[in-house]
Amino acid sequence: MPVNAIFAELLGDAEIEALFSEDAMFADFLAFQSALVAAQGRDAGALADFAPDLEAVARGTLADGVPIPAWLAALKAHAPGLADVLHKNATSQDLTDTALTLALQRANAIFAVRLKALAGTLETAIDRDGARPLDGRTRMQRALPITVGDRLGGWLEAVRDLEVRLRSLRPDVEVLQYGGPVGLNPVDDLAKDLAARLGLGAVRPWHTNRIRLASYGAFLSLVTGALGKIGQDIGLMAQMGEVTLSGGTSSSMPGKNNPVRAEVLVALARKTAADLSALHGALIAEQERSGAAMTLEWLVLPGMVAQTGAALNHASALIASVSRFGAP
Amino acid sequence: MPVNAIFAELLGDAEIEALFSEDAMFADFLAFQSALVAAQGRDAGALADFAPDLEAVARGTLADGVPIPAWLAALKAHAPGLADVLHKNATSQDLTDTALTLALQRANAIFAVRLKALAGTLETAIDRDGARPLDGRTRMQRALPITVGDRLGGWLEAVRDLEVRLRSLRPDVEVLQYGGPVGLNPVDDLAKDLAARLGLGAVRPWHTNRIRLASYGAFLSLVTGALGKIGQDIGLMAQMGEVTLSGGTSSSMPGKNNPVRAEVLVALARKTAADLSALHGALIAEQERSGAAMTLEWLVLPGMVAQTGAALNHASALIASVSRFGAP
Amino acid sequence: MPVNAIFAELLGDAEIEALFSEDAMFADFLAFQSALVAAQGRDAGALADFAPDLEAVARGTLADGVPIPAWLAALKAHAPGLADVLHKNATSQDLTDTALTLALQRANAIFAVRLKALAGTLETAIDRDGARPLDGRTRMQRALPITVGDRLGGWLEAVRDLEVRLRSLRPDVEVLQYGGPVGLNPVDDLAKDLAARLGLGAVRPWHTNRIRLASYGAFLSLVTGALGKIGQDIGLMAQMGEVTLSGGTSSSMPGKNNPVRAEVLVALARKTAADLSALHGALIAEQERSGAAMTLEWLVLPGMVAQTGAALNHASALIASVSRFGAP
Amino acid sequence: MPVNAIFAELLGDAEIEALFSEDAMFADFLAFQSALVAAQGRDAGALADFAPDLEAVARGTLADGVPIPAWLAALKAHAPGLADVLHKNATSQDLTDTALTLALQRANAIFAVRLKALAGTLETAIDRDGARPLDGRTRMQRALPITVGDRLGGWLEAVRDLEVRLRSLRPDVEVLQYGGPVGLNPVDDLAKDLAARLGLGAVRPWHTNRIRLASYGAFLSLVTGALGKIGQDIGLMAQMGEVTLSGGTSSSMPGKNNPVRAEVLVALARKTAADLSALHGALIAEQERSGAAMTLEWLVLPGMVAQTGAALNHASALIASVSRFGAP
Repeated sequence: MPVNAIFAELLGDAEIEALFSEDAMFADFLAFQSALVAAQGRDAGALADFAPDLEAVARGTLADGVPIPAWLAALKAHAPGLADVLHKNATSQDLTDTALTLALQRANAIFAVRLKALAGTLETAIDRDGARPLDGRTRMQRALPITVGDRLGGWLEAVRDLEVRLRSLRPDVEVLQYGGPVGLNPVDDLAKDLAARLGLGAVRPWHTNRIRLASYGAFLSLVTGALGKIGQDIGLMAQMGEVTLSGGTSSSMPGKNNPVRAEVLVALARKTAADLSALHGALIAEQERSGAAMTLEWLVLPGMVAQTGAALNHASALIASVSRFGAP
Repeated sequence: MPVNAIFAELLGDAEIEALFSEDAMFADFLAFQSALVAAQGRDAGALADFAPDLEAVARGTLADGVPIPAWLAALKAHAPGLADVLHKNATSQDLTDTALTLALQRANAIFAVRLKALAGTLETAIDRDGARPLDGRTRMQRALPITVGDRLGGWLEAVRDLEVRLRSLRPDVEVLQYGGPVGLNPVDDLAKDLAARLGLGAVRPWHTNRIRLASYGAFLSLVTGALGKIGQDIGLMAQMGEVTLSGGTSSSMPGKNNPVRAEVLVALARKTAADLSALHGALIAEQERSGAAMTLEWLVLPGMVAQTGAALNHASALIASVSRFGAP
Repeated sequence: MPVNAIFAELLGDAEIEALFSEDAMFADFLAFQSALVAAQGRDAGALADFAPDLEAVARGTLADGVPIPAWLAALKAHAPGLADVLHKNATSQDLTDTALTLALQRANAIFAVRLKALAGTLETAIDRDGARPLDGRTRMQRALPITVGDRLGGWLEAVRDLEVRLRSLRPDVEVLQYGGPVGLNPVDDLAKDLAARLGLGAVRPWHTNRIRLASYGAFLSLVTGALGKIGQDIGLMAQMGEVTLSGGTSSSMPGKNNPVRAEVLVALARKTAADLSALHGALIAEQERSGAAMTLEWLVLPGMVAQTGAALNHASALIASVSRFGAP
Repeated sequence: MPVNAIFAELLGDAEIEALFSEDAMFADFLAFQSALVAAQGRDAGALADFAPDLEAVARGTLADGVPIPAWLAALKAHAPGLADVLHKNATSQDLTDTALTLALQRANAIFAVRLKALAGTLETAIDRDGARPLDGRTRMQRALPITVGDRLGGWLEAVRDLEVRLRSLRPDVEVLQYGGPVGLNPVDDLAKDLAARLGLGAVRPWHTNRIRLASYGAFLSLVTGALGKIGQDIGLMAQMGEVTLSGGTSSSMPGKNNPVRAEVLVALARKTAADLSALHGALIAEQERSGAAMTLEWLVLPGMVAQTGAALNHASALIASVSRFGAP
């Protein structure tokens, strides 16, 4: 998440960040409980207008390491008639993990749209400039002549590849967590009903098997890395005068036109790759539930998703801002 | 920075985060310009009430890659009589880097206080429980008997070591950046005066020599790592019943008492160590100014500082929350 | 690769390391050229007894950044009659990348066998001890009682998951690289024939689209991470006396029995996760060929593969060394 | 360490690697025991011709997690008359840690020489080409004109800075480890005598306080990062025709001259920065001795030292290979 609001547009992605906001998280906690109530044949209507006290839950989160105990106590007080079915066979991590996968599901839908848009933007650029000559460059040196279409075609191929990978990983990560105190709940009719109501896949509990999330994080880093390559290439083309773009200005040299988004793409890729190693550290999740591993994921994964979103936005805007690929 | 306000108290550090807020950053930009005006013998009073438009600057930051052009244009409009001395021989990075080191200076002062407090908390615990017996453990196995004081003495030694390291690194990082368009400003009287007015050291421009920041980041990771070791140890002691602490509760098992802060310490250490590798990536800052490297630092370093602050808070609170070290 | 031969058995995997040896690499370079000659309808028999001078090639590798120019010059001198078809439309990276994917193909076959063996070892342990009681532990604290089978079943599920992931990724990474000087060779009949002769998939050149390798590296880290979780759990069980294992001895305390392989599993996981971030840095491969990115992969990927192999060996041996899971 | 001998000269550093060889490690183990015997007033002459069986020790290392038990048993058999003083109050980690710091001491001496040589090479280049004009470049774009001396002066300043940092950190890391079974040995006369005989500093045991090593690793990454910046700059200058260098050739384009060492510098920096995060993971060293943390250091630190050595060699050779900085 951006360091502060000054950098919100440069480094952030408000649409993605909203998926991880307190409002979204509270809504997902409630969606879980509502679906669980309904799956037990009860009317969850009494939950609809529940509005938790953010500060109280934040204090409870500090005390308990997860928001659920404080939040759930308030929910039960709000709907005492449902106390016997609320949180049935569930544990805190079931709600936090499921809220996470619901957020990832929404992010994935956004990513699918943006990847497609980026591919379209690249196709447009290729249609316009693809036949223009370009120096092929290998190991930083001029190699055989190629065309703009050759280089941009490589970028497009990567984007198409990422679209395919995203489609294939979605069922792996858009899944319910419903394991109970020590992660042993069966995938029974209740679990399947709960999953269906939430629009998620029903799978065996994965409290300390974090392969799904670690694998998803790798995808995010593939996206930012592939877009970082585009940014790096455009930065190098800018240095060589092989691209004409509108971009940043300088406080000391007003006429200078900096490839700002290209640089940001590189930075987002480097950051996300480092985050990935932290996320994979959470694979070493001890015993039946790891507070350390779970906390590490919260520290890392939402930021990775937002960085990926920002990178997709920057990549499309960057390509669109190029008025000509290739030397004048 | 915490994913959202629900986790603000668990994962965040409001005091440190405020050092990197838009208000703090704007204030530091203004402090730089005011000091620069004054160092040129002019009255900077006209700058005092400047209040930039956050959204306009954020848009400018996206366009330019740095906040300064938009911010500076507004400042010059606000104080047209100073247009000839504002930003004299400066470039955007001079302001962003200096604002960063000013924030680090304040963070360091806070860290010094917190390290000292943590040492005191440890001393108190050693005074109380130091003579109690404890199983020494090597490679996860019972080794020779030791005392609580032996183990906590090791933690204390690390904290004392970090205090010494912090003192010795402060002059290295609490420095002015004033290099001008291509980083070649001399360390002349103007630069020395500017530095003195800001309370920073006067050193050669370091636009693309990021050793100071990379080295500082390593210190942050030393802190979180050393505190992560304490957290890990306390988590293991909790598992063995070798520590009695007040802590988190469970939504599914009300009587359970989880070592929440201990786990968070481990997570903060893992995250910060990964961030460190990203920060060191910014050492590869190309030519006379690297937008990619600078952006990477903004993505990483403020979060590292806040994580360090959070870890220090958690460590002291964790030690203080232990009513007895050693078996009952 | 292990620091030296003293650690060869503890940290290494001789079988995997051999896949990346100079002999294996030379053999694969030759296999590429032989297949290319044959695919052009010529007899490659004259190549069979080619034995390059290792030191000369190493010197050439330093000069050229890749071994191929020196190696190829010697090969052409060895078989002058084939000079017109050797290296036809190929570039150095075609050989180094293809040699890499051939090594990965062999590693994958080994990994498939070892994952299956590990699953079998776990099944045997579950058959023997699965019904024994165990304290479920969440957040380092005793939670509900479970059985040994519950915990080991979770480990087994991860191993089964990794088997499935390995099968599905093999076609993605076991592919030919044959792109020519600037990576624009078509996937024509010659390329398909070449791929078929090498037992690899025929795909579009991927000189600077390193998604395949970055994605493969993530799989390696999933493996070591999942096995690191097993190691961590066994280390914690050893601390609690919940596992009886044969293992390391101590130079100062002869009767002590350390969970050596368990600790090594954790270390291998941490190392591989960090390597993964470096490998993803190679996604930012500039222009039509990146010497920096390619070199980074050589610095990282073979080690990751060997660490994964070592982890699989340790995991199976560790499980097999346990005479009883659960308290006595 | 290089993947195989083909890459030994490109990616390796034989001089540094030798410091971590089995021979060097055995010699240091023996030096420790000999000094310990002598410090107890006995004649260590009987130890001089001890030649351990490498394979037996390697097997023991696998069994015990450290080489010492197997090695020490053989040493005691070799010199039974010293059995009462050998390994007095020592533990395995005392030997492995001290052997490590002895190796680092030798590496540091080499680094000091190489940094000085690199500075000299840069000074020579500045003397020759410093006055030549160069386009200053900020954010990948042409900025104000500078001179070759301006840019190379910045590189030189970083190298000088690293020399200073190296001098100041040497006493921090070139220290004895002599803690005994649970790390509680005092820094008494015996310890001081032992340290003096080994040429190391006498400090409190640091079995699980790994700040010294983590801090040292950060220095290594500062070196490779600062040299990676030089490599990156030269690669970019090569692209622009702003440097004339002798370098790699291409198998497909014989006339092409690739900036091989420049690219390798970038790759070594990226790898070492990732290694650093793994090394800092070892700060979380549990209890009185952590097998996992210690093993992680062995997996990472020797390679980091060798990469740093290789980078220093490449940097000097690269600068020396430039016949002209600046456009023709």
